[in-house]
Amino acid sequence: MKTIDYRQVEIRKGFFKELQKLNAEVSVYNIYKRFDETGRFRALKCIRDDEHKSNIFWDSDIAKWLESVAYILAKKKDAKLQKLAKDVIDDICSNQLENGYFNSYFQVYEPENIFKRRTDHELYCAGHLIEAGVAMHEAGVDHNLYAAMKRYADYIYDRFVVKKDTGFYTGGHPEVELALVKLYVASGEEKYLDLVSHFIDERGRHSEETYPFAYNDYDQSHIPVREQREAVGHAVRALYLYSAMADLARIKGDGALTEACEAIFENIAEKKMYITGGAGSSPHGETFTFAYDLPNIYAYSETCAGIALALFCDRLAKLKNDAKYHEVFERVLYNNILAGESKDGKGFFYVNPLEFHEDICDYNNSLRTKLFCPLPERVEVFECSCCPPNFTRLIESIGGYIFGEGDGVAYVNQYISAQAIVCGAKIVLDSSLPYKGKIRLKVSGACRLRLRVPAWSGGVTMRVNDERVQPNIQEKYIHLDCREESVIMLDFHIRPRFVYANEGVWYDGGRKAVEYGPLVLCGESCDNGKNLCSVSIPSLARAKVSEGEFFTLEVPARRMHTDKSLYSYEKPVPEEFTLHLIPYFLWANRGKGDMQIWFL
Amino acid sequence: MKTIDYRQVEIRKGFFKELQKLNAEVSVYNIYKRFDETGRFRALKCIRDDEHKSNIFWDSDIAKWLESVAYILAKKKDAKLQKLAKDVIDDICSNQLENGYFNSYFQVYEPENIFKRRTDHELYCAGHLIEAGVAMHEAGVDHNLYAAMKRYADYIYDRFVVKKDTGFYTGGHPEVELALVKLYVASGEEKYLDLVSHFIDERGRHSEETYPFAYNDYDQSHIPVREQREAVGHAVRALYLYSAMADLARIKGDGALTEACEAIFENIAEKKMYITGGAGSSPHGETFTFAYDLPNIYAYSETCAGIALALFCDRLAKLKNDAKYHEVFERVLYNNILAGESKDGKGFFYVNPLEFHEDICDYNNSLRTKLFCPLPERVEVFECSCCPPNFTRLIESIGGYIFGEGDGVAYVNQYISAQAIVCGAKIVLDSSLPYKGKIRLKVSGACRLRLRVPAWSGGVTMRVNDERVQPNIQEKYIHLDCREESVIMLDFHIRPRFVYANEGVWYDGGRKAVEYGPLVLCGESCDNGKNLCSVSIPSLARAKVSEGEFFTLEVPARRMHTDKSLYSYEKPVPEEFTLHLIPYFLWANRGKGDMQIWFL
Repeated sequence: MKTIDYRQVEIRKGFFKELQKLNAEVSVYNIYKRFDETGRFRALKCIRDDEHKSNIFWDSDIAKWLESVAYILAKKKDAKLQKLAKDVIDDICSNQLENGYFNSYFQVYEPENIFKRRTDHELYCAGHLIEAGVAMHEAGVDHNLYAAMKRYADYIYDRFVVKKDTGFYTGGHPEVELALVKLYVASGEEKYLDLVSHFIDERGRHSEETYPFAYNDYDQSHIPVREQREAVGHAVRALYLYSAMADLARIKGDGALTEACEAIFENIAEKKMYITGGAGSSPHGETFTFAYDLPNIYAYSETCAGIALALFCDRLAKLKNDAKYHEVFERVLYNNILAGESKDGKGFFYVNPLEFHEDICDYNNSLRTKLFCPLPERVEVFECSCCPPNFTRLIESIGGYIFGEGDGVAYVNQYISAQAIVCGAKIVLDSSLPYKGKIRLKVSGACRLRLRVPAWSGGVTMRVNDERVQPNIQEKYIHLDCREESVIMLDFHIRPRFVYANEGVWYDGGRKAVEYGPLVLCGESCDNGKNLCSVSIPSLARAKVSEGEFFTLEVPARRMHTDKSLYSYEKPVPEEFTLHLIPYFLWANRGKGDMQIWFL
Repeated sequence: MKTIDYRQVEIRKGFFKELQKLNAEVSVYNIYKRFDETGRFRALKCIRDDEHKSNIFWDSDIAKWLESVAYILAKKKDAKLQKLAKDVIDDICSNQLENGYFNSYFQVYEPENIFKRRTDHELYCAGHLIEAGVAMHEAGVDHNLYAAMKRYADYIYDRFVVKKDTGFYTGGHPEVELALVKLYVASGEEKYLDLVSHFIDERGRHSEETYPFAYNDYDQSHIPVREQREAVGHAVRALYLYSAMADLARIKGDGALTEACEAIFENIAEKKMYITGGAGSSPHGETFTFAYDLPNIYAYSETCAGIALALFCDRLAKLKNDAKYHEVFERVLYNNILAGESKDGKGFFYVNPLEFHEDICDYNNSLRTKLFCPLPERVEVFECSCCPPNFTRLIESIGGYIFGEGDGVAYVNQYISAQAIVCGAKIVLDSSLPYKGKIRLKVSGACRLRLRVPAWSGGVTMRVNDERVQPNIQEKYIHLDCREESVIMLDFHIRPRFVYANEGVWYDGGRKAVEYGPLVLCGESCDNGKNLCSVSIPSLARAKVSEGEFFTLEVPARRMHTDKSLYSYEKPVPEEFTLHLIPYFLWANRGKGDMQIWFL
């Protein structure tokens, strides 16, 4: 299956149109401002300033911002934004070394260590810059960065493949691999695909440097990638690598790589993923841990890891289309990823816990040696500010994840209001997701359609040209051949549903979450008071939707009141009340408070 | 209320007699062996050995071992043990400095820093050595250590009170305070009480050094002690200090100190204590944290903190007798403290979690930078081996916590088989605790009795001289005046009971524990399989006791089985099974496995 590129897809209205508007008008400017204030752009001038040293991550932050800008400008002119981007690109291009190398940290502060230290993100930054160059080029906004990054990729090829004189074989933070696939596709030059193959093939074949606190599984270089079957180590590193592996498996028809990718996906989706689609449960190294280890309070579940999981799903679907990949994409998008940004488009979460206690947060911060705790509210910039521009670039390119085509069949994989030409037919999609399940598709031209039936759907009714039609569902897709202009009305039945975690997930023992369509819901103390942990939901039969500031599900629930003593032989007394549940992605938009997903 | 000293109380038979036997025959020898192997005794020779430096804690480990030996030898001759102790005492006495100072670390490796660094446990070690000296002296085993430690206390007085030339005002690890109370009582010399007052009064009045990772609340020197109302900081430090405060409050009739002690006790018992009586929930600094923060998996709940809480309860009861203090003493003794030793008397726990997952333990240990995890099985020695000899000294002196007398009234506070003269009457107590509730008291001589009714008792029946008598219960004590030799049969009704944690304890939300008499029960995976977190106990009505290797309660229970997927809309399917619960203190005696106290 091939997906329809975001440039060929117009996001028309509704939920994601609003999000893109916020993104283009607020978020991308606000991120620019924060990056500017923190010296990130100044660092691109490559002028030594020992008091305000640049950071080894900064180039990648800027690159993702540029990539976001490319996606925005591809859709709509914005002279101000274009100017900001141009200046940034000029700085990069004019400070690129003769040989093609560019890294605002290394070439200024440690030129002697270029490509010597594996753990310091050079290839990671290069990868993001290459992605930005390709995005700018393909958006038709700028071609200088693309040309510059091709030269950089050539230099990388020269050092790693030809001269082999670098201090390591493969990057400590995978990313360049998937970027080089994009460069290969954009340029058509086999050399870049060879470079991808080189990095993928060499990984895990050498004894390579890693961090002193970790073993090589931390960066997935513990065994050759084709032998890997389990998601391990730093979640973002892992999922960027797996994405590139899936790309390469598809392009090369590599069976061993395909097998590894499929096994790793199963391992994540069936053992190591939060209900929100969050990946990487441990704050200690931001890592995947072991099967069913999904703590709620100290969930790490980084926004970037969620985005990387979405990228992996997208590539798996291209490799071998299966609704399960789009299901996980949808889960992580509407829950973990969307939670990454505040409602006003300015603040971001790096860490996305599934349960939050203000008291823990206050206590951990009160200590002289502060203890890790997820943030209670989204902030505008982080020291390692990878998540904010990663969020904006995904939202701006969301059009690319909706439609697919393959073997003369047009796929609708995500229900996001959009239009595009798919298999020669024009498809206009109107979606009321995520809050309602009504979908309208206007298909102009003959077309063999496959419409994905979401896993959360409690049933579907379909009308074609105003006639009720029994949907022909095969492997989670409605199969429908349109011979002329057709209007298809789908109604995916949304009702609140309990979701149960596997009995192996001890953190959720005896508990259940509530989903509403693609949304995982949560309760916050500002609506429901404290002590959410003793709240039980006997039934969802009388749950009802109420629209206020946020989408809210009102659920008859029960909370238990104990006497005042710490331990008591007295059975707690139940109090009936109405629990207000909101979409998880909207939590923490009303000040600091407690939050919970899993109820009794 | 005055308690009857352990030397006046003969432990006759039953549970604690067996424990003392194990203690005297196995534990105390095994600890000696482990301490010997690790160089602790060699260090007392005070010969510089830079390759095998002694440790700042070691003197205190040895002191508690000596104290245990004193309690053993007070009851029964053991020439071998006496010889071992004598050699140890000889080494201490012969290496004590002219001025009275003794510390096997400082006088050898950093003589220039004697009483300079507050955080390095000098006064803590001194305190334990003083306690050992008093114990040896009062046991009539040895008087040299006592004399030596008096000289040491004199030296401390001279430096801290007279010369005031030390680098700090009060010790970074309280302990010497309660030891000096013992020295005052043993010697009758006011000077030592003055020294206690000095340390208690000065605490929190100065800006004192503490660890770089902590603020002064860590060692309870953040505010003057009389203003303290909340249990804070390192739990063992805190509880040793509070014990000394209660001693001083009683001896001096100090109302402000009494008020502080009472408030702190309430704060612990009603906000910060595990159901096992464990105190200090956080592994980060072994500290008390905030109200209701009682995590089960990462409970710290150090054995020494439990012992220190028992000591605080004992002193509070002496200050102002109230059954609540004996209730907490009983809770911590039979659960947290007893869990500290393995069934064979050789192994010890430092950390006492309330829930254990083998998988977490394996994972945390598999990391290159290992993460903290409670031990899966008890071990024979720790680097900081404070808990093992603390356990043995408490068990050997347990006789001192049974009886009390005051205002001509004889109190029975703990039901441990023992005999003693209380208020002039001989009381012979036969107890079937902890597994049965039948108690027999033979009282010879006229006596006004107060027999504590345990909180766990579901009722009590009483026979006096074979006649059924309605017990006169006031403030949790049966009041009974015996005019002649009386045989009193008590039957405290034991039935398994659910215990509920306060709604503020989110870790236990929707859950309940099972108690049987004074015992908190737990389930282990070796009896019940994995995934204990989904096990629910609908009722205890059909629970029945079965005696196997361990006391076992067989409880009809239910576990939920989910389908294989990680998340499912399918309601889990219940399976009825018989849950085997054993006393918490016996967990982890059958190899590594999962354990849980709080069930659905």
